[in-house]
Amino acid sequence: MNARATASRVRDLYWPPLVAAVADLANRRPELGLIVGYHLGLNDAGGVPGAGDDGLASTLCLAGLGARAVGADEGQAAACAVATELVKDFIQLQDDILDEDDMRRGRPSAWRAFGIPATLLAADAARAQALEIISAVEPHGLAAMRHLARGMDAVTHGQAADLAAESRPYLGEGHVTLAEYDRTIEDKGAGIVITALALGAVLTGAPTGLLDALTRCGRSLGMAWQILDDITDIWQPSGPRAFSSDLRRSKKSYPVIAALASEASERPVLASLLAARPTTAAGVREAAELIEACGGRRIAEMRMSGLYTDALDTLTHPGLDQAAVADISAIAALLGTRGTDPALTVGTPGH
Amino acid sequence: MNARATASRVRDLYWPPLVAAVADLANRRPELGLIVGYHLGLNDAGGVPGAGDDGLASTLCLAGLGARAVGADEGQAAACAVATELVKDFIQLQDDILDEDDMRRGRPSAWRAFGIPATLLAADAARAQALEIISAVEPHGLAAMRHLARGMDAVTHGQAADLAAESRPYLGEGHVTLAEYDRTIEDKGAGIVITALALGAVLTGAPTGLLDALTRCGRSLGMAWQILDDITDIWQPSGPRAFSSDLRRSKKSYPVIAALASEASERPVLASLLAARPTTAAGVREAAELIEACGGRRIAEMRMSGLYTDALDTLTHPGLDQAAVADISAIAALLGTRGTDPALTVGTPGH
Repeated sequence: MNARATASRVRDLYWPPLVAAVADLANRRPELGLIVGYHLGLNDAGGVPGAGDDGLASTLCLAGLGARAVGADEGQAAACAVATELVKDFIQLQDDILDEDDMRRGRPSAWRAFGIPATLLAADAARAQALEIISAVEPHGLAAMRHLARGMDAVTHGQAADLAAESRPYLGEGHVTLAEYDRTIEDKGAGIVITALALGAVLTGAPTGLLDALTRCGRSLGMAWQILDDITDIWQPSGPRAFSSDLRRSKKSYPVIAALASEASERPVLASLLAARPTTAAGVREAAELIEACGGRRIAEMRMSGLYTDALDTLTHPGLDQAAVADISAIAALLGTRGTDPALTVGTPGH
Repeated sequence: MNARATASRVRDLYWPPLVAAVADLANRRPELGLIVGYHLGLNDAGGVPGAGDDGLASTLCLAGLGARAVGADEGQAAACAVATELVKDFIQLQDDILDEDDMRRGRPSAWRAFGIPATLLAADAARAQALEIISAVEPHGLAAMRHLARGMDAVTHGQAADLAAESRPYLGEGHVTLAEYDRTIEDKGAGIVITALALGAVLTGAPTGLLDALTRCGRSLGMAWQILDDITDIWQPSGPRAFSSDLRRSKKSYPVIAALASEASERPVLASLLAARPTTAAGVREAAELIEACGGRRIAEMRMSGLYTDALDTLTHPGLDQAAVADISAIAALLGTRGTDPALTVGTPGH
């Protein structure tokens, strides 16, 4: 089976209702709909329609499939998909402001194009629309609304932990531990994936065992992807990236924290280098090599591998719809191969 | 009866559970609880405890009293009070960023003290906590959660309309009409007051007639207060304020829009003056005098007066608890006398 064809088929199911939801917002509040549409690639900054991003729209797809996995009908699944995607858009719109990211998907980020005030309001409107959409669906829309709100709150807590970690030392008293970072990525990285996969189970009132399986799968997948992001920010298959944005910002990502938590003798040199924020290609490369020498890359890859395995294992729960599970696995595998050495990738379906 | 003593008594009921809720947030996420506590005056920017603001905490009080008015018990009323206040804090924390306001209640605003990223996350955390608190209360916590979320969304739409109005002309094609501004303040100004007064009715499943009465009262009161804010920003009892922030920012507030919607011959001069943004005390005074000459002040005062009357009339609904209604009226009267000519104030209890 072609994983990309699967992803494309699923995306085609849930993209039109998302477009309709954004059109509904634009109808009520044109200046906010414009910004959400821009973020999704549905229009340019002037409102001229575009085709939409041709990415995987993985959150949209996973939320729809998570609902189908517990027997939701296509209407319920579409509501889960659209609501979760709008929550993800809220998080991304705000995240680009928090991180002062100038670009997203090859375009200026929304706050760069429209300013902070309008972008914050557009993010708020997307969030509110998500809650409204899911709350209106039978049978347990209000409980699903709370599930969505809790997912957003988890992300907020992870973002706050990430922000607080910035001012803490690399080594010594008050340094960020691997256990803490695990918790941060469980909140920040996995919050939206847990929400996506489990929303349909809450909405339909699925048995606890199924809700737990989807929650656990979402946690493991989301954490694995965050660690994968951390790894691929520093390395491409051929070696360190000269322009790793994490290293240039001395971000305490998984490989960095794992390296500093090791027993390796290179730790103090690495900590000093990161504290000084490497800005040259040579400095970034040196940091990447020190992280690898301390075992940071290997530990991150092993952890990611373990999480993938766990995610796919939980999907074998016999109560889940097997067609939906196969689609989730295909999309998980696609996302798991982004920008890495193929030999490194784990967790493909039927692993 | 002393209205200030009433307000103080009600505040003493609901302030302790608010303090407990902020302490709970600080316990889970110290750096976010610090910011919410700072905003409320519970601590300074370094975390040193303070006494809390000695203001009326009108949102807190009105939400508690609105619940009592439909027979909620004190536990339900306290949850309504705390949740609504936390939503108001979310709105204010974000609003100071949107408006680039440097000060609030005589202190640097939170984003000035803690930066935009941390303040946005603290606002998000306060919002999430509000939804969580109300969702856990019997019998209709989840419906009340949706009511709160809708109230926030109304405020977002009002803020967006306000922001969009900034770039529109004062006169001629595309100018902001009085009907539009009415809608803006119904959302932005009244959204939180409607939410406050009606939340208990949703939570307890009160009869539609009572929910409608409290909603209507909240709308009228909130709009009246917004217009009062607009009036007192431009004038104090002795005459125009030299430092009206609305006029210096050429904000399209109620008196301004009413003046420009009149038939007065001074309209074009006023529009030109505002478009150029008066920055001197003389310029601000001239604009205020032109607004008054066009009837803008009188129309605003009449509208405010009519809204107050309507608000207090709706409270006469026989199904509402009369002790709670008397307290709501007392607090409404206190808020209605802020900074205005006493002869102007309308809507005192028993008017």
